[in-house]
Parts: sequence; structure tokens; C-alpha cells
Amino acid sequence: MRDPNQQKSGDCNVTEIYFEDYVLDATRETLGRTITETDIVLHAGQTGDFFPHHMDAEWCKTQDFKLRMAHGTLTFSVAVGATATLVNPCAVSYGYDRLRFLKPVFIGDTIRVKVTITEKRDHKLPGHGLVCEQLEVFNQRKETVLVCTHLLLVKRRGA
Amino acid sequence: MRDPNQQKSGDCNVTEIYFEDYVLDATRETLGRTITETDIVLHAGQTGDFFPHHMDAEWCKTQDFKLRMAHGTLTFSVAVGATATLVNPCAVSYGYDRLRFLKPVFIGDTIRVKVTITEKRDHKLPGHGLVCEQLEVFNQRKETVLVCTHLLLVKRRGA
Amino acid sequence: MRDPNQQKSGDCNVTEIYFEDYVLDATRETLGRTITETDIVLHAGQTGDFFPHHMDAEWCKTQDFKLRMAHGTLTFSVAVGATATLVNPCAVSYGYDRLRFLKPVFIGDTIRVKVTITEKRDHKLPGHGLVCEQLEVFNQRKETVLVCTHLLLVKRRGA
Amino acid sequence: MRDPNQQKSGDCNVTEIYFEDYVLDATRETLGRTITETDIVLHAGQTGDFFPHHMDAEWCKTQDFKLRMAHGTLTFSVAVGATATLVNPCAVSYGYDRLRFLKPVFIGDTIRVKVTITEKRDHKLPGHGLVCEQLEVFNQRKETVLVCTHLLLVKRRGA
Amino acid sequence: MRDPNQQKSGDCNVTEIYFEDYVLDATRETLGRTITETDIVLHAGQTGDFFPHHMDAEWCKTQDFKLRMAHGTLTFSVAVGATATLVNPCAVSYGYDRLRFLKPVFIGDTIRVKVTITEKRDHKLPGHGLVCEQLEVFNQRKETVLVCTHLLLVKRRGA
Amino acid sequence: MRDPNQQKSGDCNVTEIYFEDYVLDATRETLGRTITETDIVLHAGQTGDFFPHHMDAEWCKTQDFKLRMAHGTLTFSVAVGATATLVNPCAVSYGYDRLRFLKPVFIGDTIRVKVTITEKRDHKLPGHGLVCEQLEVFNQRKETVLVCTHLLLVKRRGA
Repeated sequence: MRDPNQQKSGDCNVTEIYFEDYVLDATRETLGRTITETDIVLHAGQTGDFFPHHMDAEWCKTQDFKLRMAHGTLTFSVAVGATATLVNPCAVSYGYDRLRFLKPVFIGDTIRVKVTITEKRDHKLPGHGLVCEQLEVFNQRKETVLVCTHLLLVKRRGA
Repeated sequence: MRDPNQQKSGDCNVTEIYFEDYVLDATRETLGRTITETDIVLHAGQTGDFFPHHMDAEWCKTQDFKLRMAHGTLTFSVAVGATATLVNPCAVSYGYDRLRFLKPVFIGDTIRVKVTITEKRDHKLPGHGLVCEQLEVFNQRKETVLVCTHLLLVKRRGA
Repeated sequence: MRDPNQQKSGDCNVTEIYFEDYVLDATRETLGRTITETDIVLHAGQTGDFFPHHMDAEWCKTQDFKLRMAHGTLTFSVAVGATATLVNPCAVSYGYDRLRFLKPVFIGDTIRVKVTITEKRDHKLPGHGLVCEQLEVFNQRKETVLVCTHLLLVKRRGA
Repeated sequence: MRDPNQQKSGDCNVTEIYFEDYVLDATRETLGRTITETDIVLHAGQTGDFFPHHMDAEWCKTQDFKLRMAHGTLTFSVAVGATATLVNPCAVSYGYDRLRFLKPVFIGDTIRVKVTITEKRDHKLPGHGLVCEQLEVFNQRKETVLVCTHLLLVKRRGA
Repeated sequence: MRDPNQQKSGDCNVTEIYFEDYVLDATRETLGRTITETDIVLHAGQTGDFFPHHMDAEWCKTQDFKLRMAHGTLTFSVAVGATATLVNPCAVSYGYDRLRFLKPVFIGDTIRVKVTITEKRDHKLPGHGLVCEQLEVFNQRKETVLVCTHLLLVKRRGA
Repeated sequence: MRDPNQQKSGDCNVTEIYFEDYVLDATRETLGRTITETDIVLHAGQTGDFFPHHMDAEWCKTQDFKLRMAHGTLTFSVAVGATATLVNPCAVSYGYDRLRFLKPVFIGDTIRVKVTITEKRDHKLPGHGLVCEQLEVFNQRKETVLVCTHLLLVKRRGA
């Protein structure tokens, strides 16, 4: 258990986790996060993607989906960010595989992310292995809206 | 050529491009975009990822990379957004494959994206095909910092 | 027609249009953009204008217009930005004439801009001419909410 | 009275007010400011506090307070900012005492601040005194949502 | 003089100024405001104008002006916002004339605005007149970077 | 120890800590956070405090402190936010005492927060006690820039 009494100076939120420490099928889940109109406007502003799917409520009314939806990169970025609660100095983000947008995320939807360690494999970089985390993003109706596989390049113990 | 005299009312930036219209190996390139400290602070704010790699200049000085770097999701989102210049009502974004972070992007780096149509394949959804665009993100030193493959689900003509 | 297959490396979104190329009465129209509460809060934050017309929903209820309205400079900036889809290296923005706020823009209104080339005239700068674009900003009820005339200083061919 | 005709070049919004000029029990009141969803999202982004009380509408529904609420530091910052209308070169902000969060501030609440000079006392810094301003923050139902005492270190005349 | 002791409850920053109260040639000057990289990135995000003049430091190096410059609408909006220090319930903003961009504003430039009442004229709206304010925006080298004329529609006394 | 393998579904970052669990003199320390120009511009935008101390680099050069400094409420908000890493459903924030601004925080300074449990005392609310956390905010030169005491109202076990 992590509690405010046991934490030592300087190591709050930082924990070394080596390749060997990752356990297949282990899962964790993030806090929920409501996607707001603000998030969409800010993400359009950050990326320059002002497509009417995100920014034109009138046009959206004429489409099948009816409502402005979050950019795929917004849902992805927020989901990934939600998992970033613990700094692991032994790992770097290597990339993502099979990122899929399964359902639209609308203004007011609340997402949460379930992370599962699905694979551990060797890597050509000496002293390292590759850990695969499956990210599943759910909305408040328990529908999966986005999935992807996060590849982490992680140091081995004693390497 | 697109020019202000030929544009008709209501169709600016919207063009229907069907599955058949995509040509293998065709390429386009985006405008450049300098990644600023502001982008990193805003992206941390949007995603909640305040890892010291992005937000603690003092800690970064103690690391091999020395400088605060852009979040992977930031570079990805900005790159994808830069390609979003033309609304194609026939296409929806299906997902991304093989997203890889090849080099760090630092504050002040300027990125540009080259898009190449690399594959066209059938899809189980009747009347649609899958178009694969390779996104290559370069910095001002012509180094590739990020690659990924964008999958577009596109209507076929007459479908 | 602009399509992803015909674009050459490096020239996406950049087109040289000379003074002689502009055609009187030619028009184009932008995509729609919904003005959100977020836009108003961000614009107040950027400009420092926290007048109750924009920021105090309770006070607005006591006024004739009842609802928080967009800053004039917000509607103007968003409208001008919406027209900025094509970089023309031959032109620089010279200024604006007769900017008028005709109707309030409220949270949730969706605006679109119609641009018409209304005048071409000589300019004292050798090798240049002045092109006047009329910007008309409409809301979703087809009401004109803002008009202005944009003056572009444009190179002549062979100058 | 301050009016646009009486203002001299360069002194707009800047007035020297010495320790002796502050009058006990004098009060002033700020303009109103509606706290928006945007403010909460931006404040989460600035501070990194993404607690579900502020960011997860679904979780909030399961709590007694039902609705997402403003961060305490948001209400405090906006309230303090609302009082910052006049630069006094004779004063610096020394700190705050007895900051209390009395009621939650929800999205859509409009706050205003009443400032009362409640105390003037000596300070060890030669030529200065301490002025205490009581800040009371009200919502649109006249409920006090936050109180605090602002300590100003102010120059004495002739010091 | 405006000071914290003389202000009455509820009227801080609000003053009724009628058409007759405006004095020709009266001037006021705003506080200074440094235009930052942040302002440019936020304004691009708000307006969707990601032109390389503002967002691509590498491209700017190849141009005569060398440095990223503020959007014209940014300088205009910030300048106008800086003048918005006093709510006058008798006036509404009618529009702007002769807005001209005289010199580029670069990151790090500090602007200030001088406002001069240059004209008072009748208006067709019964009980109102038109007041013209000249806004001159200076940088830290006392160069005029932007000018415009603000038209205010103002109630007459006893109307 | 907290690691990704031991976390169960739904309880990531949420831990119940009762009044009895807090241990006097226990300390924890946050990650570092560089205060950027962006933070100051955003905080001015959120609060409406555009005082030249924060926003006018030219004026700052004429003052003893020479450089634009962070708003007190910015440093306070960021510091408090940095401590918000663990949701404790047993505690609510009651307020702050003795908030003092000891040294200015400039653009580029990196702050970290040390939290020490300094006092536990009874509270009139049945079944609750008050826990006092001292927050000390340091810059990269180990100088204390801000201190305050956070009061937490915490449930007792079995209450």
C-alpha cells in the first residue's frame, strides 16, 4: 500500500520496475475522465484539425452520428496520459501497435482505461526486453471505444 | 490547381475521394510546425502526463537526452493534425499500425510529415476498401522522428 | 481539383496567386465552426477582456441579450482564421476596413465565412496591387453577424 | 471618478496607495465571473490535479455533491485575480491567512468577491506596514463559498 | 482618483459615461503586454491559422523577416483587450475602421496602446451618438505596429 | 510498493487513509515541475491578472527583480496540484493557513514540494479529525519560495 507516511523524500511516484518484474495478465485500471467540449476545442487548437466532425455542431446534426465527436488522437492521448501515474526509470515507450477506433467518443462521455500485460518478449537491444501492454478504453456504458497495444522497452535486472 | 476564384460556395476544403481514386505511391507533404514549450505544457495539461521527461528541466539535465522532450502522443497528434487539410466525406479513420517513436522531439524542433499511399486492400465492410497511408515525421535535420501507418476505411465508387 | 495523389512533395497548401490571378466577384466559403463557451473563456484569457458580457452569465440574464456573447475580436479572429487555408507567398495582409458587428454571436452558434473578391486597385508599392476581399460571417440561421473588408497587398506577375 | 477623458498618458490602472491611505472597513466589490467547465479543465491542466471530483462526471453522480466541482485553488485563483484591477506600486502581496473552502463551486456558478480592509498593523520592515484585506467570495445565491485574508506589505508615506 | 477606500459595493470597474462626457483629444494609455510564443500558439489554436509565418521557425529563417510573427488578429485582439478596463453600460462596440498592420510583432515584443478620442458624430439611432477612438499600438522601440479606429455607439444623456 | 502487477481493477490511485493512519512527521516529496512562460500566460488568462509583474518584460527590466515572475496563486496552485497524486476518499480539503510568498518564482525555475504531517487535532464534526500538512515549495537552488499549511478534514476509523 502506498500511503503518505511511508513515502521517503524524493521518491514519490517513481519506482524502478524491471523486465522481470512485469507479470503476464496483471491488470490495472485508471481513474475516469470525462471528455468535454473544452478538450475537443483544445485538441483542435493543438493539432490544427478543425474538421467539422469535431467543430461544427450544425453539420454534425446532418450526419448519422449527430453529435460532435472527439478526435481519435484526443481519445488516444487522454487514455495514454491517464495511465502515466508512475514513473519507471527502467522503461521507455517504444511505440504502439493495432490502435483502433471502435466507437465514437462524444462530449460528456467518461472514459477509463484498463491496462493488461499481454506479452513479454526479447529485444535486440542488449539487456532489454519488450513488454506489451494492452490498453482498452471504455466509456460509461462499458463499451470499448479504443484499443491499442503499448510497447515498452524495459531494462533487465543486472543488465 | 486550387485558387480562390474557382472555389464554389460551400465546397472549400471538402472533396470526395473514393477508394478507386487513391493511387499507390502518391505522396504529399505538410507544412512545417515548430514544437514549442507551449505545446508540451498544453499537452501535459490535456493528458495529465506530467512526467519529468516533459516538465522538469532540471531533472532532464541529469539524463542522457539533457532536454525536455515532447510526449510521444503530442508528436503523433500534431503530425496527424497537420495532414488534416482536406475533408473527404468518403473516408473514416480506422486506426493506426506500427506507430514508432524513433527519435526524441525537443522544444524548438520543427516537424513536417510526408504521407505516402502504401497499400490498398479489401475490407469486409461491403462497398468499402482499406487505404494505408504511411506517415513519416521529419525534424529540421531530416531525421525521421516518428512513423506510423494510417488506415482509412474508404467508400468505393458506386457502392 | 486537389487530391492526395496529385500533390507534390513540399507544396501542399502553398500556391502562388498573383494580382492578375484574382477574379472580381469570385467567391469561396469556409467550413463551419461552432463558437463554444471554451472559445470565449480562452479569448478572455488571451486578451484580458473579462467584461461581464462574456464572463458573467448571471449579469447577462438581466440584459436584453440574455446570454453571454462572443467578444467581437473573437468572432473576427475565428472568421479570419477560417479563411486561412491556402498559403499564398505573393500576398501579405495589409489591413481591414469597415469591420462591423451586426449581431451578437452566442455560445453554440455556428459561423461560416463567405469571401468575395470585391475590388482590385493599384498601390503605390511598385509591382504590387491591392485586392479587397469582402468577408461576410453568417450564423446557422443565415443571419449576417459580422462583415469586414480584407485588404491584401499582392505581387504582380513579372514584377 | 475614473473616466477616459481624465486619464493621463501612461498612468492608466496604476495608482500609488500608501499605508496611510488605506481606510479600515472600506470595501469594494469585483465584477461577477461564471466558473465554467472550461475553467476546471484548464485548471486541471495547469496544476495536474485530475481528481475525479473535478474531471469524472460519472463518479460525481455517485457522490453526495452529484456534480463536478471547481478545484479549491481554482476558485481561490479566480477570486484573487478578480481583485487585481489596479496596480499599486507601493504594495506587494505578502501572503494569505485562514483560507477556507466553505461551499463547493459548481460549473455554471457565478462568483463575485467583496474585499474589506479589516486591519492595519506595523511590520518589522522599516517604512512599511501590513494591510489585511478580507476576501469573501459569494456565488449567485449569495452564499459565501470561500473566505481568506490577504496580507499586503505596503510602503508608508515619506519612508 | 480611484482608490480601494472610495469604491462602493457593486460598482467597481463600472462607470456610466454618456456621449456628452467624451472629450475630443482626451487620451489614455494601457499597461504594457509582452507578446509571447504562448500567445501565438494559443491564437493559432483558437483561429486555426497555422500559417508558417507564425508556426514554422525554420521557414521563417528563410524569409526577410527571419522570425515567427504574431497573427494580425492576435495583435489586434490583445490591443483591444488591453483597453477593456472599464465597463461603460452606455456604450456598445459598433465596429472598427482603417485597421492597418504597420510593422510585424515578434515573440518578445512588448506592446502598449494609446487611445485618443478623435471624433464625435451623430448617429441615426435616436438618443445615441458615435464616438471614434483612435487606437495606436506601440512596441518597446516606440514604433507604431498597428492602428485602427474604434467606433462606439454611446447613449446621450436624457435619451 | 506500488507496481503494475499488484493493482486491482478500479482502485488505481485511490487509497483510503483514515485519521488514525496519518503519522506525525511523515514526509513525502513531489516530482519537480518547471514553471514556464506558458504557465504564466495561462494563469493570467485564467485569473484575469495581467499585472506587469507577470506580463510586461520591459517594465520588469526596470524593477529590482528584473524578470517576469509567477503569480503567487500560480505557484500555490501548481504546488498543491503536484501533491494531488493519490485520491483519499476519507479526506476533504478544509483550507490553508499561513500561506507565505517567500521568494519570487521566475520563468525557468523548477519547483518541488515537500509535504510534512505536522499536526493532528480534534474537530467538532463527529467522527472526524483535522490533519495539518506543511507544504514547503523549493526551487532548484533549494531556496524555499512558498510555504503553507494544508488542513485536511479526515474520517476516523469506525466513525
